[in-house]
Amino acid sequence: MRIALKIGYDGTIFDGFARQKGKNTVEGEIIKILKKSGLVKDIKDARFQYAARTDKGVSAIANVISFNCKGNALRVFENSKKIWVFGYAYVDENFNPRYCKSKRYRYYVYDMGYDIKKMVEAVKIFEGQHDFAYFVKDRKRTIAKIDKIEVSEGKIIKFDFEAKFFLWNQIRRIMASILEVGKGRCEIEDIKKSLEKKERINFGLAEPENLILIDIRYDFDFIPFTQPRFLIKNEIFNDIKCFLN
Amino acid sequence: MRIALKIGYDGTIFDGFARQKGKNTVEGEIIKILKKSGLVKDIKDARFQYAARTDKGVSAIANVISFNCKGNALRVFENSKKIWVFGYAYVDENFNPRYCKSKRYRYYVYDMGYDIKKMVEAVKIFEGQHDFAYFVKDRKRTIAKIDKIEVSEGKIIKFDFEAKFFLWNQIRRIMASILEVGKGRCEIEDIKKSLEKKERINFGLAEPENLILIDIRYDFDFIPFTQPRFLIKNEIFNDIKCFLN
Repeated sequence: MRIALKIGYDGTIFDGFARQKGKNTVEGEIIKILKKSGLVKDIKDARFQYAARTDKGVSAIANVISFNCKGNALRVFENSKKIWVFGYAYVDENFNPRYCKSKRYRYYVYDMGYDIKKMVEAVKIFEGQHDFAYFVKDRKRTIAKIDKIEVSEGKIIKFDFEAKFFLWNQIRRIMASILEVGKGRCEIEDIKKSLEKKERINFGLAEPENLILIDIRYDFDFIPFTQPRFLIKNEIFNDIKCFLN
Repeated sequence: MRIALKIGYDGTIFDGFARQKGKNTVEGEIIKILKKSGLVKDIKDARFQYAARTDKGVSAIANVISFNCKGNALRVFENSKKIWVFGYAYVDENFNPRYCKSKRYRYYVYDMGYDIKKMVEAVKIFEGQHDFAYFVKDRKRTIAKIDKIEVSEGKIIKFDFEAKFFLWNQIRRIMASILEVGKGRCEIEDIKKSLEKKERINFGLAEPENLILIDIRYDFDFIPFTQPRFLIKNEIFNDIKCFLN
């Protein structure tokens, strides 16, 4: 039996996603839970796979892991304080969570008096298929398509990026350029030049803590599930708001 | 110049409050920030003090630290991901945050079908002054007064405890007994017997993750302040709710 779990985590408390000896990583934590519970004996045999290898500091409420197992996979995560389960689905034996219909990342920006009109105009340039060579870390694969970029304005501005897949550091590099435009430190033309590879401009790398993998789609739905532990955490954050004002 | 900062933290990511070599503690993190920034050179000289030594796993949005310093104490915490500042006040040279007018702790319980009416009745027993000998860890000081216990019902039940000071493990021991009553595993009479020291019953210790130091009062007010970083974190939790349903 192969199962897919939609999971979440606070990226700010981990040393990154990918397993590394002696480091506190998301993948490492998941594998520890799976093994300790006896649900999975050997990670390779169980064909453990995940949807997104989020950068260090990036959070998620819609990353997906999949593995073969017998037993109650939900129960195993019940007491985890660091990994939350938000849904599950029984999947095909060949299912690899990497291949989804779409992923949605959200980037949060606290408005410090930015030129938001320009930021919205600038970010739209990245929609569609481009060679993101100057906006990625990895140089092997640079061509990708961003299906949609939506902005919702407010004191906290939200930038939603939708695509089948994203490249390494891609959103954070895009957002760094958008922030530079917002601060009036560069022009939309500079971004265009860089996206068209006419001139390489180093816009920097936007903070990972403001980025979250917020939605993922497949051709099936997850059965929703929320741990009481997470509902309480959420309620606490709700209450905090009342006490802060 | 002596300053008081109202601070918050997610207790679940720390190894407890009090400084311990090689451990990731709240106090250790604060001192690291103060020293690294150069704001405080020597902790003793600066008379660094705090209001509450929360148990491992317990969170806070209203703990208070105080120290002597020159310079901008708010700026120093601006980039901290683990310690949030919610307010500040310039205080008297002799101010010790431990001596407050009142503290309020909130304990969250996810209703798994408990007998809430009985729980509310049971918790009221603890109001007023008692010898909490059978409801504390430390045996040196056992007499204390709880000014008020309020319960707000819902799918997540909230128990608010208000007092000038609390004893070690006191709320978690009280809540353990309340949970036992809610589950029908013991009677209100058993709690009474234990509080009156007629019979020592071990009710256990309720989980620390559901407890938060949510408010603190002095005879002065804090000037409110919220880091953009925290506002974003709060907004993320708000958004999560939409995506979960």
